[in-house]
Amino acid sequence: MNTFGRKFRVSIFGESHGELIGVVIDGVPAGLELSEQDFAADIARRKSGAKGTTPRIEEDKPMIVSGIYEGHTTGAPLTVVFRNGNTHSEDYSLFAAMPRPGHADLTAALKWDDCQDPRGGGHFSGRLTLPVVAAGVVAKRLLADATILDETPLTSIDARIVELGGNAIPDQWDDAVGQAVSEGDSLGAVVECTVKEVDPGYGEPFWDSVESVISHAVFAIPGVRGIEFGDGFEAARMKGSEHNDPIAPDGRPTKNGAGGVNGGITNGAPLVFRVAFKPTASIRKAQRTFNFQTGEMDTLEVPGRHDVCFALRTPVIVEAMTAIALADLVLLK
Amino acid sequence: MNTFGRKFRVSIFGESHGELIGVVIDGVPAGLELSEQDFAADIARRKSGAKGTTPRIEEDKPMIVSGIYEGHTTGAPLTVVFRNGNTHSEDYSLFAAMPRPGHADLTAALKWDDCQDPRGGGHFSGRLTLPVVAAGVVAKRLLADATILDETPLTSIDARIVELGGNAIPDQWDDAVGQAVSEGDSLGAVVECTVKEVDPGYGEPFWDSVESVISHAVFAIPGVRGIEFGDGFEAARMKGSEHNDPIAPDGRPTKNGAGGVNGGITNGAPLVFRVAFKPTASIRKAQRTFNFQTGEMDTLEVPGRHDVCFALRTPVIVEAMTAIALADLVLLK
Amino acid sequence: MNTFGRKFRVSIFGESHGELIGVVIDGVPAGLELSEQDFAADIARRKSGAKGTTPRIEEDKPMIVSGIYEGHTTGAPLTVVFRNGNTHSEDYSLFAAMPRPGHADLTAALKWDDCQDPRGGGHFSGRLTLPVVAAGVVAKRLLADATILDETPLTSIDARIVELGGNAIPDQWDDAVGQAVSEGDSLGAVVECTVKEVDPGYGEPFWDSVESVISHAVFAIPGVRGIEFGDGFEAARMKGSEHNDPIAPDGRPTKNGAGGVNGGITNGAPLVFRVAFKPTASIRKAQRTFNFQTGEMDTLEVPGRHDVCFALRTPVIVEAMTAIALADLVLLK
Amino acid sequence: MNTFGRKFRVSIFGESHGELIGVVIDGVPAGLELSEQDFAADIARRKSGAKGTTPRIEEDKPMIVSGIYEGHTTGAPLTVVFRNGNTHSEDYSLFAAMPRPGHADLTAALKWDDCQDPRGGGHFSGRLTLPVVAAGVVAKRLLADATILDETPLTSIDARIVELGGNAIPDQWDDAVGQAVSEGDSLGAVVECTVKEVDPGYGEPFWDSVESVISHAVFAIPGVRGIEFGDGFEAARMKGSEHNDPIAPDGRPTKNGAGGVNGGITNGAPLVFRVAFKPTASIRKAQRTFNFQTGEMDTLEVPGRHDVCFALRTPVIVEAMTAIALADLVLLK
Repeated sequence: MNTFGRKFRVSIFGESHGELIGVVIDGVPAGLELSEQDFAADIARRKSGAKGTTPRIEEDKPMIVSGIYEGHTTGAPLTVVFRNGNTHSEDYSLFAAMPRPGHADLTAALKWDDCQDPRGGGHFSGRLTLPVVAAGVVAKRLLADATILDETPLTSIDARIVELGGNAIPDQWDDAVGQAVSEGDSLGAVVECTVKEVDPGYGEPFWDSVESVISHAVFAIPGVRGIEFGDGFEAARMKGSEHNDPIAPDGRPTKNGAGGVNGGITNGAPLVFRVAFKPTASIRKAQRTFNFQTGEMDTLEVPGRHDVCFALRTPVIVEAMTAIALADLVLLK
Repeated sequence: MNTFGRKFRVSIFGESHGELIGVVIDGVPAGLELSEQDFAADIARRKSGAKGTTPRIEEDKPMIVSGIYEGHTTGAPLTVVFRNGNTHSEDYSLFAAMPRPGHADLTAALKWDDCQDPRGGGHFSGRLTLPVVAAGVVAKRLLADATILDETPLTSIDARIVELGGNAIPDQWDDAVGQAVSEGDSLGAVVECTVKEVDPGYGEPFWDSVESVISHAVFAIPGVRGIEFGDGFEAARMKGSEHNDPIAPDGRPTKNGAGGVNGGITNGAPLVFRVAFKPTASIRKAQRTFNFQTGEMDTLEVPGRHDVCFALRTPVIVEAMTAIALADLVLLK
Repeated sequence: MNTFGRKFRVSIFGESHGELIGVVIDGVPAGLELSEQDFAADIARRKSGAKGTTPRIEEDKPMIVSGIYEGHTTGAPLTVVFRNGNTHSEDYSLFAAMPRPGHADLTAALKWDDCQDPRGGGHFSGRLTLPVVAAGVVAKRLLADATILDETPLTSIDARIVELGGNAIPDQWDDAVGQAVSEGDSLGAVVECTVKEVDPGYGEPFWDSVESVISHAVFAIPGVRGIEFGDGFEAARMKGSEHNDPIAPDGRPTKNGAGGVNGGITNGAPLVFRVAFKPTASIRKAQRTFNFQTGEMDTLEVPGRHDVCFALRTPVIVEAMTAIALADLVLLK
Repeated sequence: MNTFGRKFRVSIFGESHGELIGVVIDGVPAGLELSEQDFAADIARRKSGAKGTTPRIEEDKPMIVSGIYEGHTTGAPLTVVFRNGNTHSEDYSLFAAMPRPGHADLTAALKWDDCQDPRGGGHFSGRLTLPVVAAGVVAKRLLADATILDETPLTSIDARIVELGGNAIPDQWDDAVGQAVSEGDSLGAVVECTVKEVDPGYGEPFWDSVESVISHAVFAIPGVRGIEFGDGFEAARMKGSEHNDPIAPDGRPTKNGAGGVNGGITNGAPLVFRVAFKPTASIRKAQRTFNFQTGEMDTLEVPGRHDVCFALRTPVIVEAMTAIALADLVLLK
C-alpha cells in the first residue's frame, strides 16, 4: 500500500542501496511548468553536510523520466528517479544479529519474513524521503498555480525547527549538537509548519479531515512521535472561553488556536502544526541489547555515518508532506 | 470521501437531526458471532448523563439491517442504523447568523455552499460518533476472534481520561467540572489508549505506518488537537541513549518509549498513544463574535444542552477508531 | 469491496429477505435538487408485472434518510433505503441441497463458508439492483445539472432491448416469451445503451478508460455475459479502412464505429454499447443436477416466482450503471 | 488514476518516446523468487518481427530497480523499467494537423489541453503494454506459488488468437495478412483466454465480480472493442435449459457456458473469455479526414512503421491483464 492520496497520488519505490529510488505521481494536471532545476533548492535543504548531519553526501540529481514534454507536465504520470551511490553496504551486516534499538531493523525483518533488503535499511531507509521531497516540489508548484486551480495560490508552506534537544532558543542548538557529537549520542527536535493564504473549505468531514490527511502523511516520515494543531496539547488544558476562536468581521478566526481548521475544514486562517521528531536511533554510544546470534545480551556501538540530529534535515520533508496532502485536498475540492 | 480503510472499510452516514444515522462496514469476514446486544456496553459508555455531559439522552438502539444471518456475519456488507429522536431543532437557527466560535458552523456552511443541514451540526455533529462506536464494536469482535484471523487475539483496547482541565489527578476532576458548569464554561482533556498483546508486523512501511493509520482515524473525531505515541513530544527532548528501546531476550523492546511501533510496524510491545481533546466549543458564557446578519460584532451566549467536557464521552470513541484502524491493518497483513 | 467509484462513490447493502436494502452515495455535490418522487419513474421501469417478469410485486418506496435538506443535497453522504416485504423465504430451502444450475447458490455458499444468507439469494439477489437504480437516478440528476458541473448537460442515457430470445424484431418478442412460459423455460436478451451529447475528454488513459469503467459497472449486474462498444465484435472482422472513424469538420468522428471512445477517452460522438444478458437461471423445466444431500444426481424443477426473461427489467439498470460510471468520470475530470 | 488493483496494485508510467517506461507493483508478497531472466519469454511474445507486425524492434530489456534482494522479492514496491530507443519522432509531427482516424491522437490532445506528448502516442502508446506484460510476469509467478498463497497453484493462463480478419481457420491467416499488407490496410482479431485450475470462491459480489475486474483490466489494452465470458453474446440467444450449467458430482458445472463464473464468483471450472480487437488504426491506405491546419478535408496516408494486425501481439498482453486481475482477487480472498 505504497500510495498516498486520492487525486494527487504519490507512490514511492526503492531501497537505500538499490539501483534507483523514485516517485510516480498520478493526477498532476497538464500544463504545469516544471524542470529538473526546480527541485534543486528543496533537495539541497534535505541534504546532509551541516553540523549534526551525516557526512554521507550524495549527488541527489533528479531525473524526470515521464510526464513532462517541452517543459510542461502532460497529464500523464510524472516519474522522478534518483540513482543511489556512495553506499557502504558492509556497514549493515552487524544489524541482522543485533537489531539497532529504536530502529526498524527488527520490525522490517519480522514484517517481511527476513526477505527485507537489510542494506541501509532497505525500503525503510530515511533515504526514501528524497523522492518525497521531489513529490513535494511538484505539489508546491501545483498549489502555487492559480490559473490551473482557480483557487488562491498557496505559496507559503514554511517549516522550521522550533526546538532542538529540548532547547527553544536557537543560540543553544550548536552547543547541544556539539555535545551530542562528543558523547556519541543523538538529539530530537520539534518542527513547526505554517501555511498562509489557505482558502477556506478544504478538507472533508470526518474521515478525511485536514488534520487526518496531514497527520497521515506526516507520520509516514521516519522518526515522528507526535503531531499537534494550533494550541495542540495545550488546548486540553484551556477553557472553552480561552481556546474558542471568535470570528472577526473578515470571517476569519481571531486567535487561530484551532490552527486553521474547524470541524476538519480549513477556516481561512493559517494552518499551523508542530511535529515531534525523536533523536536518531543509530548512536555510537554503547547500548546493551540482545544479540540474536549469540542468544545473549550484548553491547552495541553503532558504527558508520549517521546524523546526530536527523530532525535538522526534516523541515523540507514536513513541507513536502504538507504540500502533498494539501494538493490532494485541493484537487478533491 | 466518507469511507475509512482498505479491507475493513467503514462508511458513516446521517445528520444529527435527520431520520437515520448509520454505518456500512465492508470487508467483515463471514462467520463472526454478533448480535445487537453486543453493542450495548460501548454505546452506554458513549452516552451522556454523567456530570459534565449533555442532558440530551437518546435511546441509541442499534438495528443491524444487513450482513447478519442467524447470529453470524455473512460476509456481505454489515449495516447498523440508529433512529434520531429527542431533537430540538429550533436551538440551532441562531448559528446561521452567528457561527459559534470554535465550532464547524462556519466552515461547514463554506464547504457546502450553504446547503449543509444546519440542525444540530448536520453531518458534522458529534452524534456521528455513535455509528463509529458501532463499527468499533464490530472491529473489536473481529480482532478478538483468533480462529478467523489466525493471529493472537487482541482483546485489550483500553482508553481512558488521564488528564482533565489540566489536572492529572482524578480526584480533582469533579470539582473542575463543577466549576466550569457554574461559569458556563467548558473543559478539555487528554485520553490515553493502550492496546496489549499486539502481534509484531502490523503496519506498512511509509504511507500506511501504524501511526499514520491510527492518527488518520483519531483526527476524524471532532475536537482532537493532537496525538502522540510512546514518549511522544517528550521524545524530542530526549537523547538517543534515553529514548532508544534496547531489545530484550524475548525480542520485545525494554522501555516502550516507541509506544509499540518501530519504522511504522508494530514491535510486539503494547501500543500506547495519547490524544488531546479541546474544550467544548458551545459555551453559555458570553463571547464576542461577528454577527453576519447585522454585519457587526455581537455577543453570543450559546443556548441549548451541551457537554461541559465532551471529552468525558470520548474514550470509547478513541477505542473504536483504534479498533477500526487495527482491523484494517490486521486484514491487510 | 462493495463500493464503486473514486469521486462518485456508490456502496450498496442488504439482502433480498433482510430488513432493509439501500445505497450510500458519497461525493454528491451540494445543491442538487432531489426528492423521493424523482425516483418513481426509474423504479417503475425496473418493476416486475409485465409478461415475462415475476409476479412478486413490491412497493419499492425509496426513503432518503441522509444527505438531503430542504429538497437539496447537502454534500454529505446520501442514503436511500428500501424496506423488504412480500418475501416467501420457504421457497429457497431446497437450494442448499440442490444449488440451481446457472445460479450463484453454490458459489455464494463457497465464497462465504456457508454463512451466506440463503433466503432469496441474500446479498447476491437481483433485488440489490433496486438501490443501484436509485443511485442511477442521483447520477442522472447530477449529469444533467449544467450549473453544478460546468459541462454540457448529459440528459439522454437511453437503454432498451434490441434482441430477445435471439429475435431482433420486437413483434416476435411477445410470442417468444409466451412460448418460454408454456415450456417452463427462460430467455436471454441484448440491451443497447446510447448516450448522446457526451463532451469529449472523459475517461483516463489505460486503467480507467471509459470502456473499463463502464464494463466494470455493467458486469456487476447479475446475468451479464458480454459487452461490446461501437462496432464491437464485428470490428474484429473489419479492415482498418472500414472501421476507422475519419474526423469530420466539426471534430467529431463520421461513423462512430468506435462507439464514442478513442484511446479510452470520449471523442464527442454518442457513446454506444451493447450488453448480453443470459436467460434466467431459475426455470420450472426439469434439470438433472447434483443433490448434495443425497450425494446423487437428481431432478430439479425450480419452484417459486421467477422472471421468464429478467433481461426485460434490465434496461433501466444498465442506464443506472452507465450514469454511475459517467458521474464518476465526469467528477474526476 | 493510473493504478489498477486493491492489493496487487499496478502503476505504469512513461511515454513512447520518453526516457524510461516502467511499472511499480505494490503488494507483492515477500519471498517470491524472481529474476530479470523470468521476463524474457513473455516479452519475446509481445515483440514485433513476425509477418503483420511492425519492423520497429526494440531491445526491451527489463531492469528490476527495486523490490528484489538476492533473487527474491522483499515485500517492498517492485519496480521494473525499460529504456526507450529506436524512436523516429519525426514520423509523428503530421498528426497534430491531421489526427489519425480511429486513433487517440485527437482525444489525447483534448484530454490534456494539447500538453500531451505527441511523439509516438505518448502515454497512450501501445508501447505502454510492455510494462503491463512485465507486471503480468510477476502476477503469474505469484499465482503459481502455492506455498505463499496457500491456494491451488494457478499455472495455466493461456491466450491465443482464435479468429483473424474474420477467419476462424488459422491456415487462412497468413494470406489474409499478406493481402492487407499489399493493400496498405489492417486487420482485427479475436483472442480467447483460458485459465485452468481456478479455485472456486474468487471474486466479490456485485462491484468486484470476476468479470468486472477482468473486463476493467482488459479494456485498458488499446484497441479492445468487446469482451464476452463463456457462451457470451450467444447466451442471449439460448434458453435457460440450454445455457444453465447443471452441477456434476464433483461440484463443478458440466458445460461451462458460464465461463467459470456464477454470480461474479469463480465456480471451479476453467475461466474462459474472448476479446475483440479492432484493426490497427494507422494504415498506409488513403483516408479522407479533416486537416485542422488547413481547415479543410484532406487525404491522409499514414507514414511510418505500424503493425498490420497489432492483435497478433496481444495474447500475452491479455494473459498479463488476466494474471494481474486474478492476483488481486486471490490476494483479496
